[in-house]
Amino acid sequence: MSNLVKEFNDYRSKMNEKLLADNNKIVKRIFNLDTNAYTEGVLDVRTKELLGLVASTVLRCDDCVKYHLENCHKEGISKEEMMEAMGIATLVGGTIVIPHLRRAYEFWEELSPPPPEGGANEVNNANQGLNSN
Amino acid sequence: MSNLVKEFNDYRSKMNEKLLADNNKIVKRIFNLDTNAYTEGVLDVRTKELLGLVASTVLRCDDCVKYHLENCHKEGISKEEMMEAMGIATLVGGTIVIPHLRRAYEFWEELSPPPPEGGANEVNNANQGLNSN
Amino acid sequence: MSNLVKEFNDYRSKMNEKLLADNNKIVKRIFNLDTNAYTEGVLDVRTKELLGLVASTVLRCDDCVKYHLENCHKEGISKEEMMEAMGIATLVGGTIVIPHLRRAYEFWEELSPPPPEGGANEVNNANQGLNSN
Amino acid sequence: MSNLVKEFNDYRSKMNEKLLADNNKIVKRIFNLDTNAYTEGVLDVRTKELLGLVASTVLRCDDCVKYHLENCHKEGISKEEMMEAMGIATLVGGTIVIPHLRRAYEFWEELSPPPPEGGANEVNNANQGLNSN
Amino acid sequence: MSNLVKEFNDYRSKMNEKLLADNNKIVKRIFNLDTNAYTEGVLDVRTKELLGLVASTVLRCDDCVKYHLENCHKEGISKEEMMEAMGIATLVGGTIVIPHLRRAYEFWEELSPPPPEGGANEVNNANQGLNSN
Amino acid sequence: MSNLVKEFNDYRSKMNEKLLADNNKIVKRIFNLDTNAYTEGVLDVRTKELLGLVASTVLRCDDCVKYHLENCHKEGISKEEMMEAMGIATLVGGTIVIPHLRRAYEFWEELSPPPPEGGANEVNNANQGLNSN
Repeated sequence: MSNLVKEFNDYRSKMNEKLLADNNKIVKRIFNLDTNAYTEGVLDVRTKELLGLVASTVLRCDDCVKYHLENCHKEGISKEEMMEAMGIATLVGGTIVIPHLRRAYEFWEELSPPPPEGGANEVNNANQGLNSN
Repeated sequence: MSNLVKEFNDYRSKMNEKLLADNNKIVKRIFNLDTNAYTEGVLDVRTKELLGLVASTVLRCDDCVKYHLENCHKEGISKEEMMEAMGIATLVGGTIVIPHLRRAYEFWEELSPPPPEGGANEVNNANQGLNSN
Repeated sequence: MSNLVKEFNDYRSKMNEKLLADNNKIVKRIFNLDTNAYTEGVLDVRTKELLGLVASTVLRCDDCVKYHLENCHKEGISKEEMMEAMGIATLVGGTIVIPHLRRAYEFWEELSPPPPEGGANEVNNANQGLNSN
Repeated sequence: MSNLVKEFNDYRSKMNEKLLADNNKIVKRIFNLDTNAYTEGVLDVRTKELLGLVASTVLRCDDCVKYHLENCHKEGISKEEMMEAMGIATLVGGTIVIPHLRRAYEFWEELSPPPPEGGANEVNNANQGLNSN
Repeated sequence: MSNLVKEFNDYRSKMNEKLLADNNKIVKRIFNLDTNAYTEGVLDVRTKELLGLVASTVLRCDDCVKYHLENCHKEGISKEEMMEAMGIATLVGGTIVIPHLRRAYEFWEELSPPPPEGGANEVNNANQGLNSN
Repeated sequence: MSNLVKEFNDYRSKMNEKLLADNNKIVKRIFNLDTNAYTEGVLDVRTKELLGLVASTVLRCDDCVKYHLENCHKEGISKEEMMEAMGIATLVGGTIVIPHLRRAYEFWEELSPPPPEGGANEVNNANQGLNSN
């Protein structure tokens, strides 16, 4: 797993654990809802992750974008699909989204190392258990 | 077509025509991009309209929400699908989204009059030509 | 109860009922959380309502502001206290908050008719049952 | 003066007076700063009003947009100049700005009735004294 | 004082001094207002700092959150009180607030080193003189 | 060129190239529009760059602010002019803008090293070719 991806996951996991251990009821329930909202329903997981990605992008939350990029990647969403979704986000949200698009693109590359090296990446296992933003 | 829907479409069409007639190049191109972004690509139109709906909702733009609700409805997206998308938007965007959710739900009802009266509604034809937000 | 207050409460109640009847699990739980978050905890209800008011104001959600103004009023928060909170919100959020401050001030006046006419107002009863934003 | 312009100015003046009479020190000083910020400095008033217009537009505050449109109009800024500024705002802020652009364009037309009817409009006098957003 | 806290305070102090030395009247007055807004009024300092904290959190400004966390800590606000306020902020602002909540929680821990080491921390002295955001 | 400026330009250039090579039509056109919007029109380049700077600042996008600061500097806009524009941005956007103002001021200093060392800086050449945000 790349450094960028690993650092993001490590920090998120560490702090999510602390937040959940803190036992604030509202925060815990929001984390719980966040897990439930992206499970299969009348919309499939792929569509929901794309919705989460675009929502995070137009609201310009880099960490939320990374989280959903990782899940999109895990769901087998292609780079072309991801970019079409991000194109809509950039159009709706305007050019202020561009710096976030740059960082998203870099993160996606880290999730998908270039083909020669094999392609099978284990990044996906990094995102388990606590899966709140 | 309901009054709510008709008023929205009439005002939007009238002002979009004026804006395009004004001939500001940047504005015209943004309108043009807005039309292109939601056409079929590697993602289908249904998914793209849901992305546009969620982006508009978390950014709390009632008119943009109405516009995408109308297109979602035209694409045959069901109320359950629309509500799952809006549920994600409300979770990501927080309780400040709720007033927009109320207005969105009301608008959706106007697009879909209750079954007894027939169900076949022609609202869909209202949204043609200029289709910028 | 003033027209402004009554119209706001009537529309909100009507649409909240429809949204809850719709049975989307995420939306229902967010409504439920919204009720719980403002109940007495280590912070008292007054403080929490002021927090909700300021959060709504800097995010510029008129309906959320009205909802929390009504609750603040019910909790016996004085106009001076409300205005100190709104002053902080205007400073943090900037002059774009001013139009919302104008509407908030007008709504507060409707909640608190001038003293000669009696002062005891029953507005407070209007906001029961569903109390999501 | 058109109804749209008159209603906007009347409500704003009425509520600004109430807010200033309320005597909250922070609010009063913010209003005062707001008056000072747009006076001639190393940047001229025209440029500053365009800055206020674009800031208000990307933050999607219709009332702030109207206020600055009125001042821009008073300063003799042409429709072409206003539209170039609004084009930048729409590009930076994204397509969610479009509904605000429609309302801005309508308001500008009300400030500038079509030439045949005379052209000399007295709208400008409406915006004096309190000039906070 | 922890590194995280010290770095934040050092950079803020250094740049605030430069900004004030720059002598832009509007900026100086806003800094001055910022100091005044959080002093005792009809609302006490504790409540005002919580309002500032929640406003900063829903607007997702990490540095503003840190600044108010430091003041909340200095005012003797407990972790439970801070977390109740942050729970409201997360609910109102949505799951995009979660990454900011993680960083806020980490910063609070740095302000409050674990008990064994003594507990009396001198962090509080770090935040004096210039106290603008 | 200072490290702060160089790092910003290097990362932006590298990622912009990748994004453009990716060949997503919507993204490419937005980049293209972004280049066109700031060219001379009825408003001059200086005014347009100030508009871009203020829009970026109130939307609190540090990278967009840096980009426009660099262009403003290149256009010969003085520190006093830049600060007047930023003062308006801080007033309109509120005290949450202050942390961005601190970083903007630091970046401007890097663009303009103190006079003794020569003054003639070549920073300006760094920003050519791709000039999207």
